[in-house]
Amino acid sequence: MTERPVFIVSDRSGLTAETISHTLLSQFPGIQFSQVAMPFVDTKEKVSEAVDQINDQAQRSGQRPLVFTTFVDENFTESLATADAEVFDLFEPFISRIELALGQQSSHQPGQSHGIANLVQYSQRINAVNYAMHCDDGLHPRDYAKANLILLGASRSGKTPTCLYLALQFGFYTANYPLTEEDFARDELPSSILDHRDKVFGLTIDPARLHQIRSERRPDSKYASLKQCRLDVNAARQMYQRYRIPHCDSTNYSVEELGSTIKHQMGLQSALY
Amino acid sequence: MTERPVFIVSDRSGLTAETISHTLLSQFPGIQFSQVAMPFVDTKEKVSEAVDQINDQAQRSGQRPLVFTTFVDENFTESLATADAEVFDLFEPFISRIELALGQQSSHQPGQSHGIANLVQYSQRINAVNYAMHCDDGLHPRDYAKANLILLGASRSGKTPTCLYLALQFGFYTANYPLTEEDFARDELPSSILDHRDKVFGLTIDPARLHQIRSERRPDSKYASLKQCRLDVNAARQMYQRYRIPHCDSTNYSVEELGSTIKHQMGLQSALY
Repeated sequence: MTERPVFIVSDRSGLTAETISHTLLSQFPGIQFSQVAMPFVDTKEKVSEAVDQINDQAQRSGQRPLVFTTFVDENFTESLATADAEVFDLFEPFISRIELALGQQSSHQPGQSHGIANLVQYSQRINAVNYAMHCDDGLHPRDYAKANLILLGASRSGKTPTCLYLALQFGFYTANYPLTEEDFARDELPSSILDHRDKVFGLTIDPARLHQIRSERRPDSKYASLKQCRLDVNAARQMYQRYRIPHCDSTNYSVEELGSTIKHQMGLQSALY
Repeated sequence: MTERPVFIVSDRSGLTAETISHTLLSQFPGIQFSQVAMPFVDTKEKVSEAVDQINDQAQRSGQRPLVFTTFVDENFTESLATADAEVFDLFEPFISRIELALGQQSSHQPGQSHGIANLVQYSQRINAVNYAMHCDDGLHPRDYAKANLILLGASRSGKTPTCLYLALQFGFYTANYPLTEEDFARDELPSSILDHRDKVFGLTIDPARLHQIRSERRPDSKYASLKQCRLDVNAARQMYQRYRIPHCDSTNYSVEELGSTIKHQMGLQSALY
């Protein structure tokens, strides 16, 4: 199948444009796209080069490319629009309406969407990431007093990446504690957790999925067996119910969606802006 | 100063809508916004509740709120538009043009922008995150063969969060190695690095900024002194020049921008889609 060429052209990192275009194109599941990111196109010359590359591709593939852009400089957008392509300016339809609503001209400065570099925010993120690593996998429970959030779950239920995501995306101090057979045998949460019960959130997962994930790590082990996975997942669920710990199922969520769900359910506000 | 109320309403996590609206509003630096995220608004009842909450806020603040939404269900969008607010449907201006360009109707299914849950991608991310933690701060150099990328830099120049971001966002196996006085004294990179020179990328940072960051951690130490920071940063730069290691300055970049810059300069393609 021929792939429809897609270009994402931006004067900065292009992450916003990439996210939007990916979401838009996911609405057309029958079509294959070949996506080229062109970040840091920030001079007239680079815009010309981008136009050449797009036209080249249009000719080679015999298909009119889709181009998504978020240029702040209108001259760049106009140059780009000369390409033999369907060009989508992702901000233009909104900026003038917002100007009208706010009664103010937009600054036409490159976006600061990713929160550059004020030292307080930078430190918050870095410290949150360091905290997440310091308190990964049950380490250093004495430092739970500093946590915004403590994730519980059976081994491989998705705790670590979710913690790191929450630290990077929102600046939350997030610890995680793996529920093990020891906890299940005692049928009790350790006091380090119970002392901070209002910060605790549990992850569950489909046992069959957990079996797949664990099998990648230790194939054919008892640890990875479907039976053990079922036991662990059920025991974790019972623990959440018993202690009324809010929880959700990570099986069909991406790390981002899981992070947003937890933030929302725990009523946390981003520490970053 | 009164803050202009902003609502971000979504049937899923709302991350895309949050990113877009944040970028759009950053074009109006003179205005203070108070932003409320309303994720997982996925029933008629929840939409009504959202409308009530928005109207409430409009009345209380005496200011017409801005509302950003990415509903897939057009009925939800229509209900939301009845609110006493300026409602921006972030996808609508593009979807019909894309339908036309592609000659196909959009699926009107909730976006899969954050790449839910196919096992291969999930594993790639998780494994990349685990790798980044395993090879953080110079640990396990024997496993550099598996790396997609090895970041170098003086202590606290931003390596760890950048590695974790690259792992989460793009699924890259990213190690990091701190350049220390030992390396500078030998005036040579260790063989573990030289064996993988094509994967190496260096971070530099403004010495004054590094001084601030290190002072947070160990105030008034030799380590944090401006003099030591200058020495370390200069020695690292010389190392990069000598070995022709591509590098960039992390001072004015967010973690996201740094990640995109490195990906771009190293010619890496995301492992995730």
